[in-house]
Amino acid sequence: MLLDVDKVLDRPDTVTLAQDLASVPGVSAVNITVTEIDIQTVGTTVTVVGDDIDAAAFFARIQKSGAVLHSVDEVVVGDRILEPVPRRR
Amino acid sequence: MLLDVDKVLDRPDTVTLAQDLASVPGVSAVNITVTEIDIQTVGTTVTVVGDDIDAAAFFARIQKSGAVLHSVDEVVVGDRILEPVPRRR
Amino acid sequence: MLLDVDKVLDRPDTVTLAQDLASVPGVSAVNITVTEIDIQTVGTTVTVVGDDIDAAAFFARIQKSGAVLHSVDEVVVGDRILEPVPRRR
Amino acid sequence: MLLDVDKVLDRPDTVTLAQDLASVPGVSAVNITVTEIDIQTVGTTVTVVGDDIDAAAFFARIQKSGAVLHSVDEVVVGDRILEPVPRRR
Amino acid sequence: MLLDVDKVLDRPDTVTLAQDLASVPGVSAVNITVTEIDIQTVGTTVTVVGDDIDAAAFFARIQKSGAVLHSVDEVVVGDRILEPVPRRR
Amino acid sequence: MLLDVDKVLDRPDTVTLAQDLASVPGVSAVNITVTEIDIQTVGTTVTVVGDDIDAAAFFARIQKSGAVLHSVDEVVVGDRILEPVPRRR
Amino acid sequence: MLLDVDKVLDRPDTVTLAQDLASVPGVSAVNITVTEIDIQTVGTTVTVVGDDIDAAAFFARIQKSGAVLHSVDEVVVGDRILEPVPRRR
Repeated sequence: MLLDVDKVLDRPDTVTLAQDLASVPGVSAVNITVTEIDIQTVGTTVTVVGDDIDAAAFFARIQKSGAVLHSVDEVVVGDRILEPVPRRR
Repeated sequence: MLLDVDKVLDRPDTVTLAQDLASVPGVSAVNITVTEIDIQTVGTTVTVVGDDIDAAAFFARIQKSGAVLHSVDEVVVGDRILEPVPRRR
Repeated sequence: MLLDVDKVLDRPDTVTLAQDLASVPGVSAVNITVTEIDIQTVGTTVTVVGDDIDAAAFFARIQKSGAVLHSVDEVVVGDRILEPVPRRR
Repeated sequence: MLLDVDKVLDRPDTVTLAQDLASVPGVSAVNITVTEIDIQTVGTTVTVVGDDIDAAAFFARIQKSGAVLHSVDEVVVGDRILEPVPRRR
Repeated sequence: MLLDVDKVLDRPDTVTLAQDLASVPGVSAVNITVTEIDIQTVGTTVTVVGDDIDAAAFFARIQKSGAVLHSVDEVVVGDRILEPVPRRR
Repeated sequence: MLLDVDKVLDRPDTVTLAQDLASVPGVSAVNITVTEIDIQTVGTTVTVVGDDIDAAAFFARIQKSGAVLHSVDEVVVGDRILEPVPRRR
Repeated sequence: MLLDVDKVLDRPDTVTLAQDLASVPGVSAVNITVTEIDIQTVGTTVTVVGDDIDAAAFFARIQKSGAVLHSVDEVVVGDRILEPVPRRR
């Protein structure tokens, strides 16, 4: 899944949030990439892969950490991590 | 196959729709990528691969979920996932 | 081979055309990518690979389906799928 | 080798020319890519690989087919297909 | 992790800083890339990978060396080095 | 090595020059890519790889063929063909 | 390591300098890429990889050859050649 998540600058800090989200059932790896830093908030994308991720639990964990889930931008379900085919027109 | 699919914001939500479409006979993996978010609707591309996918059933499942199939943009049939050769002129 | 093929919107639909062309003798896989959609017609590129494809039969099958072969843009013959070397000047 | 070759629209057609050139001694595979289509002529690049290709015979076969060899744009000789290193200044 | 780190020109020099950071517990490899050179300061990105890196110790080592940690730009936690999925909208 | 070499149009022709240079002691493969064609001269880049190439002999062979070595643009020495790291600032 | 090194046109010539630097203890391979050629000087980037390179000896060898080390632009220390993660904001 690719998620758009905002959080306050260091509450939680990015390392702690990544470790926290990586411990959700079914998660194999999490990537948190900072896309924007304003005075108060940090904009990030959260990429997560795993086997049978508990999506609801993952979203709840984001909320519990104090961060805010803006949108779910990409979801892959199946036996492989399928890249989206780019539109050619 | 690469499909252009619109849906209402969270009816269904992207995770549920991906899980639903992944359960159609012959489907190995589905990728739903959000390409546009307006007030009411979400534009997506749906990429699906599998062995002997029941295309009609796949399209019916999209419709049943409340989403709308706009167009079929790319189809591959055969013994491998064949990338289109880009036109050079 | 890479072909430039036009067809009427859904006569035939892209899935049916791809399945039909994939059944021509010697064809291993077919990719039909929609490049343009006008009111009446759909512009596509058709990429096809195989062992000893019967090119004449392939072109005839396109015509028989109601689609129109505009041009043959790329042909590879030999023991591998050889990418064209880009011109450097 | 990468060659710049022009031919009249369908004399010979691209499939026939590719099959013809692929039969020259030492040739393993040929790629003919159409780069330009004017009213009378078709501009192409011809990429050819093989073991100990008879270059003179290959050029003669192009001429015999009615096509015209404009220039030899790239030649590789040796134990591998060596990509040119791009100039960095 | 990807970090944004500034340091004074040669205190410490880049080689010494890289060797120092590579010796922090859990670190497998460190890449220090200079992104900007002003009269006094050098702007760098520090990329670090490892198994169970002691992040706090790593940040402390940066500070101890005299360099300054500006921001943590990317964190990956899990069983693989997960690339962030680029946003498509 | 990557060399910048000019030659008169067909004296020698590109195929002959490539075969000639490929026979220099230590050379495994040569790529001659035409970068410019003027009325009299042809600008090329010559990429050569091998084990323990006799560089002096290679330059002498270029001269003997009637071509002109303008510059040596890239040299790799060691146990692998090392790509240059691009500068990031 | 990625170094920014200037040298006088042919003192030393690029091949000799590369061979000389490749003989420094711990060096596996060296790439010297010419980035600029002025009347007197040649600007280059020097990329070097190895096991336990003696950095001080490497810098001294550059100086001894008559070339000038301008800056150390990238350093990797550890069990693999780690590419820098590009900044996404």
